[in-house]
Amino acid sequence: MAEMKLLGVSLSPFTHRVEWALKIKGVEYELIVEDPQNKSPLLLQSNPIHKKIPVLIHNGKPISESMVILEYIDETFEGPSILPEDPYDRAIARFWAKFLDEKCLPAMGKVYFGTGEESDKAKEECNELLKILDNELKNKKFFVGDKIGFADIAANLMAFWMGIIEEASGVVLVTSEKFSNYCVWREEYLNCSQVKDNLPSKDALFAHFQARFQAAAAPK
Amino acid sequence: MAEMKLLGVSLSPFTHRVEWALKIKGVEYELIVEDPQNKSPLLLQSNPIHKKIPVLIHNGKPISESMVILEYIDETFEGPSILPEDPYDRAIARFWAKFLDEKCLPAMGKVYFGTGEESDKAKEECNELLKILDNELKNKKFFVGDKIGFADIAANLMAFWMGIIEEASGVVLVTSEKFSNYCVWREEYLNCSQVKDNLPSKDALFAHFQARFQAAAAPK
Repeated sequence: MAEMKLLGVSLSPFTHRVEWALKIKGVEYELIVEDPQNKSPLLLQSNPIHKKIPVLIHNGKPISESMVILEYIDETFEGPSILPEDPYDRAIARFWAKFLDEKCLPAMGKVYFGTGEESDKAKEECNELLKILDNELKNKKFFVGDKIGFADIAANLMAFWMGIIEEASGVVLVTSEKFSNYCVWREEYLNCSQVKDNLPSKDALFAHFQARFQAAAAPK
Repeated sequence: MAEMKLLGVSLSPFTHRVEWALKIKGVEYELIVEDPQNKSPLLLQSNPIHKKIPVLIHNGKPISESMVILEYIDETFEGPSILPEDPYDRAIARFWAKFLDEKCLPAMGKVYFGTGEESDKAKEECNELLKILDNELKNKKFFVGDKIGFADIAANLMAFWMGIIEEASGVVLVTSEKFSNYCVWREEYLNCSQVKDNLPSKDALFAHFQARFQAAAAPK
């Protein structure tokens, strides 16, 4: 039997991207939980360039970068496809995945973990980015096609983690009045069985972010 | 006959990525040269999110982001493949393409177009990144396999544009003593017919960068 190990962190959205892809394909795997403060020799040896999770190790061969791993999983295993069949639709899915990783996540990072002025500016940027996503998701069930796929999985932080970060920080960017299409997509997405049955603990995530915000607010 | 338009800028490495991929596949196309200061309605309508070149328009359907376009070209047309056949090798190629775009290009940008302190810090970073690339290219003809592919094309700015930027700025980061594997790869790469026959004018590029550096150095 093929040996499949996933080096990851239980609360990480990037680890969950890979887990959801493996669940969609029905591939069994062993999650090896890493401590970001004390990285294992296996992680350092498997991803010597970035020294970061997630790393998928398939029959001893390591692959890094969550979205690169998703392409690998889709190309290697039978089962429901993660990227659509048609090359044009695949390009659209990859475009949105890139947009989410390169535009939305850095802006969100600045809103919640940036300094005062930086955070205020990033709020405006996030608002614009959410408008774009909301517009894109109008009359659509998922980013591309009628089932969860590559771009939706890329958006997992925005679909699940973000709500908890909003709650823990008190800074709410998404309301159903402002971004109704986005909220409909989010609900549909979080109801997919591969997602719903494999979410991290909401309480653990809330405690994690609350501790981060409290530490940031504490006098230095 | 299929209609293939490429919205691009003649001196842009990102436009050239797409041109080289089309040349490898032997696909005919019409290059529509854009003015970055006065973007055409076609560009704004084809890439409303980023409003940036390159955009490939195939039978009226636009695709943005150079590396997304490369995947599309590889999946759509017969001819020599741009990504390798094997899923693991494909993952390796995508990993390096991502490393080049997300690590090397921003660091290079800071070295040559950043402020004093930022530029000095980025020089050290670039040195480390070049060491990584040099090590990766040891005993290899190209990034993956024995012919030009996805990661090499992603590295086009570093293979050709960078030398001219070094010359125009006087800030030289790459020497064959320090990065011998990298320099061997670069020569091999620039000798590929699809590349060699489709390079932008060295004189025009030199003049372009010289003007940029002179403008940056001029008293404000």
